[in-house]
Amino acid sequence: MELLFLGTSAGTPTKSRNVTGLALRKVDAKPWILVDCGEATQHRILRAPISLHRLQAICITHLHGDHCYGLPGLLASASLMGRTAPLTIIGPKELPEWVRITLQLTQVTLGYELDFIDVASLTAPVALDDFLVSTIPLSHRVACFAYQFVETYVLRKLDKAKLLADGIESGEVWGQLLRGETATFPDGRIINSESSREAYLLPTRPPHTVIIAGDNDNPALLAHSAQSAQLLVHEATYTQDIADKVGAEAQHSSAKMIAEFAQAVALPNLILTHFSPRYRNGGKGHTIHEIEQEARQHYGGTLFLAQDLALYYLDNSGKLSKRDARG
Amino acid sequence: MELLFLGTSAGTPTKSRNVTGLALRKVDAKPWILVDCGEATQHRILRAPISLHRLQAICITHLHGDHCYGLPGLLASASLMGRTAPLTIIGPKELPEWVRITLQLTQVTLGYELDFIDVASLTAPVALDDFLVSTIPLSHRVACFAYQFVETYVLRKLDKAKLLADGIESGEVWGQLLRGETATFPDGRIINSESSREAYLLPTRPPHTVIIAGDNDNPALLAHSAQSAQLLVHEATYTQDIADKVGAEAQHSSAKMIAEFAQAVALPNLILTHFSPRYRNGGKGHTIHEIEQEARQHYGGTLFLAQDLALYYLDNSGKLSKRDARG
Repeated sequence: MELLFLGTSAGTPTKSRNVTGLALRKVDAKPWILVDCGEATQHRILRAPISLHRLQAICITHLHGDHCYGLPGLLASASLMGRTAPLTIIGPKELPEWVRITLQLTQVTLGYELDFIDVASLTAPVALDDFLVSTIPLSHRVACFAYQFVETYVLRKLDKAKLLADGIESGEVWGQLLRGETATFPDGRIINSESSREAYLLPTRPPHTVIIAGDNDNPALLAHSAQSAQLLVHEATYTQDIADKVGAEAQHSSAKMIAEFAQAVALPNLILTHFSPRYRNGGKGHTIHEIEQEARQHYGGTLFLAQDLALYYLDNSGKLSKRDARG
Repeated sequence: MELLFLGTSAGTPTKSRNVTGLALRKVDAKPWILVDCGEATQHRILRAPISLHRLQAICITHLHGDHCYGLPGLLASASLMGRTAPLTIIGPKELPEWVRITLQLTQVTLGYELDFIDVASLTAPVALDDFLVSTIPLSHRVACFAYQFVETYVLRKLDKAKLLADGIESGEVWGQLLRGETATFPDGRIINSESSREAYLLPTRPPHTVIIAGDNDNPALLAHSAQSAQLLVHEATYTQDIADKVGAEAQHSSAKMIAEFAQAVALPNLILTHFSPRYRNGGKGHTIHEIEQEARQHYGGTLFLAQDLALYYLDNSGKLSKRDARG
C-alpha cells in the first residue's frame, strides 16, 4: 500500500502544509482513494502522480472545513477535465445536501454520477477499489470517523512445485499465470479462468490493514481495530503542553497521547499528521520537531511525521518507508 | 493604486496559476480589498504581502466556483487567526445564504460580523476602504458584474507659495503638514485640524479609476465607464481561434475582442487575466504568448498579461508597471 499526503496542517494552511487530504492506493497502481478533502486538495493533486480520472472514492472523516471545503472544487474540476466514471463519496449524512446546494448555486452539472454513502450506515465493510473499507467512530466536537482499509488484493506467488509436477517448466506461461493473463499449457490446456489459475498460485501473506483516523481526542477507541493494523495514521495536533493550554474542548490528541496508545497496542507503524500551524519546520517559536521528540519518547515503533506530497510505502513485509512523490 | 493578482486561471487551477482572486489597495497601504475568491485564495495570501486582518471588503463578480469557492475557507481562517473587525462582502444575493449554510454545516462561528451587500442593489457608489465602488452589469452565463474603483484619497502637495508668504520656511513643519500631524508654526499657531491644514495643501491630480471586470463576452458594456478609467482588468479566456471552437455559449472574451475594445475607447492600461488552462507558460501546445500576441495586434496601449503573485502599480501619472510581490 502507498499513502500520499496532500495536506498535513490543522485548521488553516501554512506555506508548507495544506489542510487535510490523503491519497491511498495499491503500490504503483493508478486507481486511488482520497481520505478527506480540505480546500486546495485539487491544487496538491496537480503536483502529485495521481489523476482525478482514476479517483475511485472519497472518504470524509468529519464536516469541519479543513477536511471538506475542497470537495466542490475538486468535483467540478474532475468534470471540467472530462471525467465520466461514477464516484463514490462516503461521509456524514449532511454532506450530499451541501454538495448539491453548492454545485447548484454555482451552476455546475457534473458529467458523472456521485454515489453517496452515509458513513454512519456503514455497519459492514464495503469494497472500494482494492480495499475492504470499514469505519470506527471517534471522539471529536462533531461526529467523526476513522476509515480502516484492508487489502483485498494480495500479491500471489506461483506454486512452483505443482507446476513442475504437472510438467509446466519455467517460461512465459509462469508470467501469464502471475499476471492473470490467458496461459496455454504444453498439453494444450488453456488457463483463462480465476479458478483454474488459482490451482497454481499460493497466497503470500495475510492482507495488510491501514487505519486513517479523523480528528480524535480518544485514541483508545481504536484499540480493537489497531490490533490487526500494520499502520495507523492519526492526528497529533499539539504537544502535550500546548494541548493543556488550549484545553480539552478542542478535542484533539497530543503527540504524547497517540504515541502512548500506539506503544500500548504494539502498533508497528505510526504516521502523525494534522499539526497545528504554530509548529513550523524551523526558525523561532514552536517547531515540528517538538511533536516528533514527544512522540518518540513514548513510542518505539516506526514513526513518521507526515509531510505534504511525501509518499509512504508499506511493503509486503509490513515495513514502512518514505519516498518522494513530488510530481 | 496597486493590484496584486492571487489567481489568473479560468475554471481550474494549474501548477502556476490559481483560479481568480485579485487584491487592490492604495500604494503601500495595509488595508486592501479582494475581488473574487476562488478556491485557495487564502493559500495565495500566505505568499503575498497582505494580511487577512487588514482585508476591508470582498467583491464577488459572479457565482461560478472558480470565483467564490475559496470564500468559506478564507472567512474561517480569518476568524481562527483572531480577526474581530467587521467585513463587507458585495456579491450576488444568493451568496450570503450559501455562506451561512456552509459555515453552519462545518460549525464555524466567525469572531467578526459579515456585512452583505447585494451587488444588484448598488445603484449608487459606496465608500469602501480608500475607494468609491460602483458596479457595471456584464454579459455571462450567470449574473456577473464589473467593479469600478475610484480613489477617494489622492496624494496632496504643499502650497509652498502660501507657506512662504505666511513666513513658514521649509523644515519639519512642512513634513508634519503633509503627513497630517500636529504642526506648530513659528508664530505659535498650532495646526491640528483638517481644515486648518487644508489651507496649506493643494490637490495634485484627479483621482484614478480602475475597473475590475468579471467574466464577460461583451466588452462594449464597459464603454461608458472605461472612458474615465486609467486601467481595465478583464478576462481574455481564449485566443480568437479557440473561442470560435469552444463556441459562443461559453460567454467569454477572446484576446482580440477585449483588445479591440480597449483600442477603440483609447484605454491607457489593460491587464488581461482568467486564461484557459490550455495556455501554458511554455512547452508544447498552446502558450500564453499566443494570447499576448493576439492582444498586441489589436491594442497599442500599455498591456500586461497577469501573473499570479505579480503586483501591478499605477503611479501618480497614471503609468502602469509591474513589480514582484512574492512574500
